[in-house]
Amino acid sequence: MSEQIGTPVRDLQTPVLLIDLDVMEENLKKMASNFQNSLINLRPHSKTHKSPLIAKKQIEMGAIGICCQKVSEAEVMQEDGIENILLSSEIVSPAKIERVSFLSKNCDLMLVVDHIQGAELLSKIMEKNESDIGVLVDIDVGQGRCGVRTVDEAVSLAKKIDELPSINLRGFQAYNGKAQHIEGFNEREKKYRNSITMMEESVYEFKKNGLNFDVRTGGGTGTWNWDLDSEILNEVQAGSYLFMDSHYRSIGGRQEQFYEDFQASLFVLSTIISFPEDKKFIIDAGHKSLSSDSGFASCYDIEEATYISASDEHGIITVDSLGPMPKLGDSLLFQPSHCDTTINLFDYFYGIRGGMEKGFLEVILPISARGMVQ
Amino acid sequence: MSEQIGTPVRDLQTPVLLIDLDVMEENLKKMASNFQNSLINLRPHSKTHKSPLIAKKQIEMGAIGICCQKVSEAEVMQEDGIENILLSSEIVSPAKIERVSFLSKNCDLMLVVDHIQGAELLSKIMEKNESDIGVLVDIDVGQGRCGVRTVDEAVSLAKKIDELPSINLRGFQAYNGKAQHIEGFNEREKKYRNSITMMEESVYEFKKNGLNFDVRTGGGTGTWNWDLDSEILNEVQAGSYLFMDSHYRSIGGRQEQFYEDFQASLFVLSTIISFPEDKKFIIDAGHKSLSSDSGFASCYDIEEATYISASDEHGIITVDSLGPMPKLGDSLLFQPSHCDTTINLFDYFYGIRGGMEKGFLEVILPISARGMVQ
Repeated sequence: MSEQIGTPVRDLQTPVLLIDLDVMEENLKKMASNFQNSLINLRPHSKTHKSPLIAKKQIEMGAIGICCQKVSEAEVMQEDGIENILLSSEIVSPAKIERVSFLSKNCDLMLVVDHIQGAELLSKIMEKNESDIGVLVDIDVGQGRCGVRTVDEAVSLAKKIDELPSINLRGFQAYNGKAQHIEGFNEREKKYRNSITMMEESVYEFKKNGLNFDVRTGGGTGTWNWDLDSEILNEVQAGSYLFMDSHYRSIGGRQEQFYEDFQASLFVLSTIISFPEDKKFIIDAGHKSLSSDSGFASCYDIEEATYISASDEHGIITVDSLGPMPKLGDSLLFQPSHCDTTINLFDYFYGIRGGMEKGFLEVILPISARGMVQ
Repeated sequence: MSEQIGTPVRDLQTPVLLIDLDVMEENLKKMASNFQNSLINLRPHSKTHKSPLIAKKQIEMGAIGICCQKVSEAEVMQEDGIENILLSSEIVSPAKIERVSFLSKNCDLMLVVDHIQGAELLSKIMEKNESDIGVLVDIDVGQGRCGVRTVDEAVSLAKKIDELPSINLRGFQAYNGKAQHIEGFNEREKKYRNSITMMEESVYEFKKNGLNFDVRTGGGTGTWNWDLDSEILNEVQAGSYLFMDSHYRSIGGRQEQFYEDFQASLFVLSTIISFPEDKKFIIDAGHKSLSSDSGFASCYDIEEATYISASDEHGIITVDSLGPMPKLGDSLLFQPSHCDTTINLFDYFYGIRGGMEKGFLEVILPISARGMVQ
């Protein structure tokens, strides 16, 4: 945090989390324009960036509001002025529902529910506190995580919610996180068609049963084009699109080997701190600077370099090239394999203007909701 | 952070990082007593706990000082009163060496070096600033990460260091991190013998060449018994022993299937937030609460439960049992697979007295050096 604004990017101390501001702004614009002439709203997932400043930028550019995964994330966002929040994960503990109840008095808040027990507890506490909240039935459309497993169960739960005081049925969530990451455009589309079919059935059954389905939320960076085309969901929860990561890149595009609807804007700059063998060197960015839950990071400066192994604060890199080698002390840029979990390791984004080679530090953005897991 | 001291452990909001204080104190005592009547010193690695309070406790109990992996970690530790620090990873950037130089004026600081370029830069900056620092030659004894690869190279580098102003050759580091984690007691011992042989050769050659080898540092939680027995190293850098994790447990003990020299004192308490299928439920602790770089966490409450998949804030658990199932909303305790990287996700330890079932919150300890990667 001691770095001066205006420092050349390659002079920053490492490891450091960088945003290429030009590219991020392009990504934000591109996604916003996708939704501009559509009846479908963008509701970006803020678990990716954890920054109220970026959330506000997304809303200024047309987003209807944001998603948060945790109450503490939503508290950070609300305190910083975000007024429309969907809590996209189930909350079933009394102490947390008390916090949700308080939060619901200060912003437009919705919560997903997938079990009558959760709905009843929510209703009871909201009623006691004289607050009220919008509720979405969480339907599993193929992810196999939270959510009721069938449309029948969804309808049955929705009916019960409709009868409970202080909670208002607003519609449903149908998020298939697994589909976002399927490799191959056609394969991804095929698998996602099943999810879309289940969404259609849900709309049909909710309508038939006189249940509110005003809000239909789901989708993401990997499926946004089908989410828009199918016009069943009316909110898309894309998160990663503004940064991208090497895993998303690898899932492939319509015609291309790589998914390039959005460009890489998030990087970790590291330093070569040891060069003990020919074509093998050690960088100062390990598990605590580059998450590895989606594989190792990709070297952006040297195509032939491979991140082969990590420990807490070290990465081991090999280079399969006859070309010129970097030197001890050189900086080296990596694209994270998973943007969300890498961002969650840092306290600040360093925003760079003018590119990753010759650019300068323009702004330091706090990652205010980092570590907000409760 | 809103929790009251005295809250029953199972009433805490989740996910939360817990220390079983009774067990941690036992582990600290046991390791300290191992070193009590020995000429070998314990120099615990603070990258594990990142807490100056715990570091001070280790020193009170006999440790000679601590290790840090990063300058920013060392800065946090020094500011909070730690006076003897080994920076156990190479530093080769001028801006960071300036910080090392400043730090060296305020505490007894040593730094490892594995290349003449690093030694020369260090010497130049220390001389300019009229400071001085102890230097250890970093020797790779089998890990394949940083460090010179042969004893000849070590001697040659040590000689050059000896000639440079403002840096004082103090000995060598010979840390084999890989050996710490080898499964099977006998297999581990066999592999580690090679490292010990290389340490012996280093001592012999340093002595023969009139080079200072007063400090010989390395070793860890997985090899402490051989580090003590062989009496070649005189500092052991154990880090994980006070907490342990499921990965360390799995490497096996002398006679036993599990490594149980030290007991599990670190846990993450989670909540079952969705129970969508028979014998399959979802907890609120995913990649952002339980690191997965060493595999998934282990369920401590239910032996037959398996953590099969994680996303950012969710864990999917299956239970292979005919016994009674937990219920929606129940709390569930997990042992992290890797203590260091899990601790680095949280801002606070919650210290529990009286056990993980019926204990109470006694103290909240800040993880002050969390995220200190520079």
